[in-house]
Amino acid sequence: MAVTTELVEAAYQALATGERTEIERYWAEDMRWLVPGNHQLAGWWEGLDGFFSFMEQVGKLSGGSFVMTRSAILLSDGFSADISHNVGSRSAAREGSTSPYDRLEIDVVHVLRWRDDKVVEGRGAIFGDGTTRFNQFWSQLAADATRV
Amino acid sequence: MAVTTELVEAAYQALATGERTEIERYWAEDMRWLVPGNHQLAGWWEGLDGFFSFMEQVGKLSGGSFVMTRSAILLSDGFSADISHNVGSRSAAREGSTSPYDRLEIDVVHVLRWRDDKVVEGRGAIFGDGTTRFNQFWSQLAADATRV
Amino acid sequence: MAVTTELVEAAYQALATGERTEIERYWAEDMRWLVPGNHQLAGWWEGLDGFFSFMEQVGKLSGGSFVMTRSAILLSDGFSADISHNVGSRSAAREGSTSPYDRLEIDVVHVLRWRDDKVVEGRGAIFGDGTTRFNQFWSQLAADATRV
Amino acid sequence: MAVTTELVEAAYQALATGERTEIERYWAEDMRWLVPGNHQLAGWWEGLDGFFSFMEQVGKLSGGSFVMTRSAILLSDGFSADISHNVGSRSAAREGSTSPYDRLEIDVVHVLRWRDDKVVEGRGAIFGDGTTRFNQFWSQLAADATRV
Repeated sequence: MAVTTELVEAAYQALATGERTEIERYWAEDMRWLVPGNHQLAGWWEGLDGFFSFMEQVGKLSGGSFVMTRSAILLSDGFSADISHNVGSRSAAREGSTSPYDRLEIDVVHVLRWRDDKVVEGRGAIFGDGTTRFNQFWSQLAADATRV
Repeated sequence: MAVTTELVEAAYQALATGERTEIERYWAEDMRWLVPGNHQLAGWWEGLDGFFSFMEQVGKLSGGSFVMTRSAILLSDGFSADISHNVGSRSAAREGSTSPYDRLEIDVVHVLRWRDDKVVEGRGAIFGDGTTRFNQFWSQLAADATRV
Repeated sequence: MAVTTELVEAAYQALATGERTEIERYWAEDMRWLVPGNHQLAGWWEGLDGFFSFMEQVGKLSGGSFVMTRSAILLSDGFSADISHNVGSRSAAREGSTSPYDRLEIDVVHVLRWRDDKVVEGRGAIFGDGTTRFNQFWSQLAADATRV
Repeated sequence: MAVTTELVEAAYQALATGERTEIERYWAEDMRWLVPGNHQLAGWWEGLDGFFSFMEQVGKLSGGSFVMTRSAILLSDGFSADISHNVGSRSAAREGSTSPYDRLEIDVVHVLRWRDDKVVEGRGAIFGDGTTRFNQFWSQLAADATRV
């Protein structure tokens, strides 16, 4: 069965519910996810459990502020790609701070590989110099090099 | 008219010829191209002339060694994305060097926006920690910090 | 009392013993240490306990392979600076790997602030593009983006 | 003859005059200077002419806004180190911008090697995560990835 934009949207909406049974309908137990850059969340997260650990960390470090706005979904046989504008703040951010260690705004693409209508692999990548800022945002450092 | 995998392939093959009249059939005069990372080739190259300047620099700095191997093409209304494995060496590389300042091997995605069967915008993005190595590869520095 | 090269050498030799009572003779209980770059060990480590945690992490991640070779000690009223060539391998390194995610070789300077013949603050800084390689070396990523 | 703080101060004051005959009294014709990081100004600048080219670029890209405030000078036989707080703005900065691509504030150390009362080698290094911001500041990119 072909991947459709509806299926991709449904998979992301399932994720947003945070409910495992809902999520398992679209994301395979043996899936893996590659976070771009070089920082505490970067690299391959293995299995649906690993993916949950990653999302839990994102939620904790960003105080649930992370928002992804999708603008396009592309398809091919067995693959999808979604283009997204992502915005977030660190939980530890100082009020009103514009520092890249506190605030993030990047344009990204996620490439998903599908098998039997479920995602088995996802890889993110960032446009422009957003990877530098992604590394700053997820840093174990505040702007003043305090470890947070 | 919808973007097709054949059209995307034809656009890249036209590029490979290096012939402007051939390239102009698929790439719009007012196109722009965003190179990821933070290095001498990074950022927005404006216009087909800017894109040619970029490619000329890539050819010169890599001694024509840069090879892109496409593994998938994804489509949507007005967009395409191609996934590619890219390999290259710096012209100034020392024989047999495995330094990231000399040799590059990364997985990337290019997202193209189309208008009237021509590319009007292209943006590259890199998977994993490839952006760090892309910054090293296109650096104005050799591995020993000599300016090259 | 003025800081001397003998005092600086003695402080580092005390560190090398790993014995707390010996170390406390030269390093103040309220000292802090700033590790350069953006990676899991970067930033301010607070207190002698924090400094011990840092050194413990260095030992664990590098399998005790980290070697610092001092070439000069500079002094002023209340400050010292030592120039060092540092080499190490990650515990998780593949045999014979030359990847910057596995092997490190950098030139650094440590600037120490002294009070009553004890170090109260230390800050490291790296010459050339060594900070990029320091970030790769202490990365939570192996060269293939596996999380380690 | 030993290097003194007065000599180090005089060498930097000579630099500030911008007058070559004055500068040649303290900086050797065959000197070299290592700029830290990975950006268009990074790496070894060879000879007094190379050092002048570097300073000219700094002046041009920062509109003469670059200010170094020295807080300490350390000495040893044949070496000096000066600790400095550096602040600057890019010429192309947008009014009021706090972006690291527009504004710089870092703490650095310069280590100078002396011969016959003249500097023959200088190397800069940056504390904390300042190297990331130094790379952004000297980037060929504005905050929106426009090439500048």
